[in-house]
Amino acid sequence: MNYKEIAREVKLNSVKLGALSGEERNKALLKIKEALIDNKEAIFEANKADLKKAEEDGIAGPVLSRLKFDQHKLDDCLSGIDSLIGLPDPINKSVFRRMLDDGLVLERVTCPIGVIGVIFESRPDALVQISTLCIKSGNCAILKGGSEAAKTNRALFDVILHAGLEARLPEGFVTLVEDRAGIAELLECDDSVDLIIPRGSNAFVKYIMDNSNIPVMGHADGICHIYVDEAADIDKAVRIIVDAKTQYVAACNTVETLLVHKAVADKLVPALAEASKEKIALKGDENARRFADMEEATEEDFRTEYLDYILSIKIVGDINEAIEHINKYGSHHTDSIITECEGAADRFMTYVDSAGVYHNCSTRFADGFRYGFGAEVGISTGKLHARGPVGVEGLVTYKYKLRGNGHIVKDYADGVSTFKHKDL
Amino acid sequence: MNYKEIAREVKLNSVKLGALSGEERNKALLKIKEALIDNKEAIFEANKADLKKAEEDGIAGPVLSRLKFDQHKLDDCLSGIDSLIGLPDPINKSVFRRMLDDGLVLERVTCPIGVIGVIFESRPDALVQISTLCIKSGNCAILKGGSEAAKTNRALFDVILHAGLEARLPEGFVTLVEDRAGIAELLECDDSVDLIIPRGSNAFVKYIMDNSNIPVMGHADGICHIYVDEAADIDKAVRIIVDAKTQYVAACNTVETLLVHKAVADKLVPALAEASKEKIALKGDENARRFADMEEATEEDFRTEYLDYILSIKIVGDINEAIEHINKYGSHHTDSIITECEGAADRFMTYVDSAGVYHNCSTRFADGFRYGFGAEVGISTGKLHARGPVGVEGLVTYKYKLRGNGHIVKDYADGVSTFKHKDL
Repeated sequence: MNYKEIAREVKLNSVKLGALSGEERNKALLKIKEALIDNKEAIFEANKADLKKAEEDGIAGPVLSRLKFDQHKLDDCLSGIDSLIGLPDPINKSVFRRMLDDGLVLERVTCPIGVIGVIFESRPDALVQISTLCIKSGNCAILKGGSEAAKTNRALFDVILHAGLEARLPEGFVTLVEDRAGIAELLECDDSVDLIIPRGSNAFVKYIMDNSNIPVMGHADGICHIYVDEAADIDKAVRIIVDAKTQYVAACNTVETLLVHKAVADKLVPALAEASKEKIALKGDENARRFADMEEATEEDFRTEYLDYILSIKIVGDINEAIEHINKYGSHHTDSIITECEGAADRFMTYVDSAGVYHNCSTRFADGFRYGFGAEVGISTGKLHARGPVGVEGLVTYKYKLRGNGHIVKDYADGVSTFKHKDL
Repeated sequence: MNYKEIAREVKLNSVKLGALSGEERNKALLKIKEALIDNKEAIFEANKADLKKAEEDGIAGPVLSRLKFDQHKLDDCLSGIDSLIGLPDPINKSVFRRMLDDGLVLERVTCPIGVIGVIFESRPDALVQISTLCIKSGNCAILKGGSEAAKTNRALFDVILHAGLEARLPEGFVTLVEDRAGIAELLECDDSVDLIIPRGSNAFVKYIMDNSNIPVMGHADGICHIYVDEAADIDKAVRIIVDAKTQYVAACNTVETLLVHKAVADKLVPALAEASKEKIALKGDENARRFADMEEATEEDFRTEYLDYILSIKIVGDINEAIEHINKYGSHHTDSIITECEGAADRFMTYVDSAGVYHNCSTRFADGFRYGFGAEVGISTGKLHARGPVGVEGLVTYKYKLRGNGHIVKDYADGVSTFKHKDL
């Protein structure tokens, strides 16, 4: 069977996973947790083999650290499973009930999306995180991991598959795609895969988005801004900017462009240059460069996600110019205003068209764990379905159930009956 | 300016519409309602010119009746606006508030999607319905109507545009695309149009879906099923089937395939053949044809949306076969079970993977007005964002607002601070 045929089988089976009770799905999660502990040595061994091969292939430091799956990463996975078990069941919740007429009752009930394809690079812990999020939300997962983690992924997948089946999850609740050609097949499964979640580099996510008719949830660019308002506390601003730029430089929620109100540029820019010395390379527009020694920032800089210790700076005339710049150059991810003026903060948070709009804090807070979602499948910069950090809730849709007793539409069209529309 | 440039302008302005209060948007709706009444003669005149041209062009009856915009259609539009004004404001609603730590508060607030492109055929009342739905939900609308309704659309658009601007809606809150080339440009506006809603024939919707990277909300096929269970009341079943097939044959929620449990086929099929005589052409599989005289239904029939007085029939061995058939051949729109057995109904409603799962009632109830949503922009067979009939609520997304006082992530990473995660 090719992956298209497999995906079709998974699709037909997927309703069975959604029909299990929350208790049954939680039991399976617990079983998986125990199986991961019981089989950890085999998993670590597989990971060592992947790491050895990666080193031989001359793969660089940051990738190696993402590839590593040790006791520490396992502990994170296990506590992630614990927190998932603790979350309320996201499916089979009645969201509203409405009597349309006597004996005709409409109900909206949450249910799984169905089949979710996840394509991720290097990090094997993502396999555990995503498959358990999918079990919690009643979705079948088709997973394709990075080839450099092939052995670790296979070991983790085997443990999860067997423990899940033992706990009576239906066949096909999780599938591993192991060859690269499988990606192209997966992207063509319009009739059976309901959602693709890509996790990886910008180029990778863009490739997925451009090459599938299946809806994609995620983000390509993360061009986040901080705007320092005229009413900003300068020390607070500098502290937040340094955190947002340097706390983890390769993250999507790291700040890339700083906008500074012209009234405070003479204080902010030199203070930042001093604080970030030897840590951040600043690039500025003509006005910014009057206040500190830095390279020139071009139009292209304001459209660039550096993922590096580089920050571009633009001086703006007022808050409206800052908002326009963000809505035009940004990626609708996360943007923050630093100000002591509540009115300015409200204006910024209303007019900036991003998933996260922050006041006096670091853009690095944009993260499912920090938001208290337990876990996240990723951060969405799309505006439909789920926006910002996406947890279990984003893996859920709903259906309408309508119960009658021989009700037909003709009676309402002819005026024999009329709708009562009463919420229950 | 071409439509791409126009759409970019609309995008930058769209945040202004979402920043207006609910009261301001309701005032604009009232103003538009009054303007439609004041200008109705000019609108009717324009419509007469469109109708005259359509007749000269030899356009057929059903299209003419959709094209007609008279006092009756106007009254429907006006009462639609009244019901929109009466609905609670869907945006700027705080959905949850959570304290992440002392002084660091996360809030999720509903907001408009942004810019919505709507492409519709023939019916000019759709222009009024959609533009007012967009105003209520704070979205800018870019509208492309059918060329046969060009004069009526222009007249309605002028009235809505001027009344809206007079009521202080921002520039660009509604845009009319009048040339056919505009469609292709609109479909390429990935950077400025957030959502496309196509309303028209299957082929038309499929064309839109295949030719844009912008998310599309709607449905192509509507292959709805009725399954008559072994525990069905036969009279009730026949009454519901006739309604679901004949009450409005060209609708997407009309039944196309009937599945009958083998235990009741000898009663149901002859009774239906008798009741639908001269009204419905039945086509059946081999087993169905043993109980009444009818044409043969092929595999292709079960994948066909007839939009005509034709119904295909298949005899199934049990409820599971019915569910599998629906999930495989259906379009995830609306499917109904006829049974007096609650257990069978529950099983059907859990396992059938459709936006609407019904028990003992006609599939024709799948409609925003009948659900009490006030109005609908269409019915979605996609599973993300909005499913089934989509009202104002489906035109809304959310953003996360995070308010702090100098909070940085480093403190949490270093263990200096820990999250408290307390819902407010």
